[in-house]
Amino acid sequence: MREVIVLGIGQVKVDENWDKSLRVLAGEAALEALRDANIEQTQSLFVGNMMSGAANHQQHLGAYLADWIGMRYSEAFKVEAACSSGAAAFRMAVMAVASGDTDLALAVGVEKMSDSPTAEITAELATAADADWEADHGLSFVALNALIMRRYMHQYQWEKEHFAPFSLNAHANGAHNPYARFQKPISESSYINAPMIADPINVMDASPMGDGAAAAIIAPASMFKRSGKPTVKVAASAAATDTMATHHRSEPTWLRAAERSAKQAYQQASVSPADINLFELHDAFTIMAALSLEAAGFCEKGQAPRLAQEGQIRPEGRIPIATRGGLKARGHPVGATGLYQIVEAVQQLRNEAGATQVNNARIAMTQNIGGSGSNIITHILKSE
Amino acid sequence: MREVIVLGIGQVKVDENWDKSLRVLAGEAALEALRDANIEQTQSLFVGNMMSGAANHQQHLGAYLADWIGMRYSEAFKVEAACSSGAAAFRMAVMAVASGDTDLALAVGVEKMSDSPTAEITAELATAADADWEADHGLSFVALNALIMRRYMHQYQWEKEHFAPFSLNAHANGAHNPYARFQKPISESSYINAPMIADPINVMDASPMGDGAAAAIIAPASMFKRSGKPTVKVAASAAATDTMATHHRSEPTWLRAAERSAKQAYQQASVSPADINLFELHDAFTIMAALSLEAAGFCEKGQAPRLAQEGQIRPEGRIPIATRGGLKARGHPVGATGLYQIVEAVQQLRNEAGATQVNNARIAMTQNIGGSGSNIITHILKSE
Repeated sequence: MREVIVLGIGQVKVDENWDKSLRVLAGEAALEALRDANIEQTQSLFVGNMMSGAANHQQHLGAYLADWIGMRYSEAFKVEAACSSGAAAFRMAVMAVASGDTDLALAVGVEKMSDSPTAEITAELATAADADWEADHGLSFVALNALIMRRYMHQYQWEKEHFAPFSLNAHANGAHNPYARFQKPISESSYINAPMIADPINVMDASPMGDGAAAAIIAPASMFKRSGKPTVKVAASAAATDTMATHHRSEPTWLRAAERSAKQAYQQASVSPADINLFELHDAFTIMAALSLEAAGFCEKGQAPRLAQEGQIRPEGRIPIATRGGLKARGHPVGATGLYQIVEAVQQLRNEAGATQVNNARIAMTQNIGGSGSNIITHILKSE
Repeated sequence: MREVIVLGIGQVKVDENWDKSLRVLAGEAALEALRDANIEQTQSLFVGNMMSGAANHQQHLGAYLADWIGMRYSEAFKVEAACSSGAAAFRMAVMAVASGDTDLALAVGVEKMSDSPTAEITAELATAADADWEADHGLSFVALNALIMRRYMHQYQWEKEHFAPFSLNAHANGAHNPYARFQKPISESSYINAPMIADPINVMDASPMGDGAAAAIIAPASMFKRSGKPTVKVAASAAATDTMATHHRSEPTWLRAAERSAKQAYQQASVSPADINLFELHDAFTIMAALSLEAAGFCEKGQAPRLAQEGQIRPEGRIPIATRGGLKARGHPVGATGLYQIVEAVQQLRNEAGATQVNNARIAMTQNIGGSGSNIITHILKSE
């Protein structure tokens, strides 16, 4: 396979975007990425999205978006892997170009969640879990994560307040990201006193929904160069699954698919966790941030809250996470999230991350999670 | 890219499969393909499906199916392109292996439509059209195709009965396919007198829904050989889109995406229409069979009904279509259809098509249509 680069990126602010339809949101991000890449179109388009069929009565987003952005006649598909749909679409674009099948591919992640009643969205999100063995018994995604968090706290002797730094770091960073849904820092007491959703998960542990879209252009390293900006190479792309139902895992507090896809990615990029300068992980809930850090090899089992307490996850720390706000503050429009992570990693590697710029960021890792860890996709990007 | 082959195929009978859940249907086809290929698992899985979120309250079919068939931890995504989801999943599997990213990939198409009220399924099918400009105005898919058929009849001076041979051929062939939903021939008078759905489309012009699943295994030609059976190579894989809304096309009776993807496919495979021994096309409606034959270059514009009248579309004719029943008689479980077409083409190339075997079949073409022609995927398979 040939080496590929991220030639352009685009995103819209995550928000309740009442005045923008699904196609307008996706189109804005896609057109910004094309402008940023200084190209007019690509031959292939991969759209990451989870719930447009239910939330927007619109499927077939490939042809839908290709038509809207002036790329009629190009190849165009939707890729779905629940909350990891965005990274899945990015991975397909990487594969399309790396294989030589096409020279330019566009990956767009989009989700418009505000138009539907929240109860419907909650039910739709639950379709990422096992319908027969989880959702049918009333388990929502918050409930599933609450069970995992409670088990983790018991297993490793942590209290709820020890998860505060994950939320505080995300909101502190989001305050400097104009595309984030929430742009103000929070205090430790506001974390502790936030309304409970599903004990032990409160509002400040959980990422907000939103309407959003993000996009990236993939090109062969040998054929395209960005003028005046560092080149960002895709050094690794790896995906792995785990059991669909959480209770089928021998160790529900260990993200085996994160471990597998991260190890494959390290091998592809010839790096180790020590080489990673920042890690845009999937903090849909604070517990998921902790589990991702552990499974990807940044600390021992059960020790992620310590890493967070020590400030190592902040922009100036050993392994900065959620540097642009993460899912917690930037927001989690599910099918778009994986592409936001890519866009934010590229911003860091281009030295365009403003107040939360990580010093000398040269190698960035992103990790997008579908379900309660049943589908995990890891990418490593390198600037040159 | 390296050369790839279809190492194994599997399918279940299209039917109202009340006793088989979504995972059982997909699992049976997948496991049959693995058995046929004489392998235990693949590293990558691509699931083609359109409406499981709405019809089965289950999304995230990649991880869901990987877990069920004993391929936990492998990579697994769902690919959606409306009724062309099956071919899209097959194309992703081809790309994954051709690129060298993986050595074995499994593509499964599945749809379970019987569990939901028909009105809901009709509404869900309409999400393949443009929500704002088509579905919202009451256009169902039958209605869209009826408009196209009426226009075609006017433009080229055909009467409704001239479309009978498409339906008669499909049902005559389906009578010999144990996996077909309908297994008995129909007469010309039963075609003429069938109940009207949306004038000029009657029941015998339209393909039936159903619950079904079909699967194929892709492997590199250099590493795997089937013992005792012809090797079936994937000689071409191409996809193209058209406008999302039918009324945006300057010529609604011309499938531009079919023309484009077929031309690309001919080029990739270094063949012309004259070399194709059989064509598994997307006869969701008889009009679509006619338009596909024309756009793919088998006859002049407006002349497909003549080809059909002459018997050239029958197994012994110049360009046999729907040789195992097509969408009309085998059935059209939407996300699975593209994989059924691949399975049936492979059966022909392996000389396993029984009473409807095409003599000396060496090159087969398949074409899967999403929407009213907005996404069209063409594959060419060759036996050696």
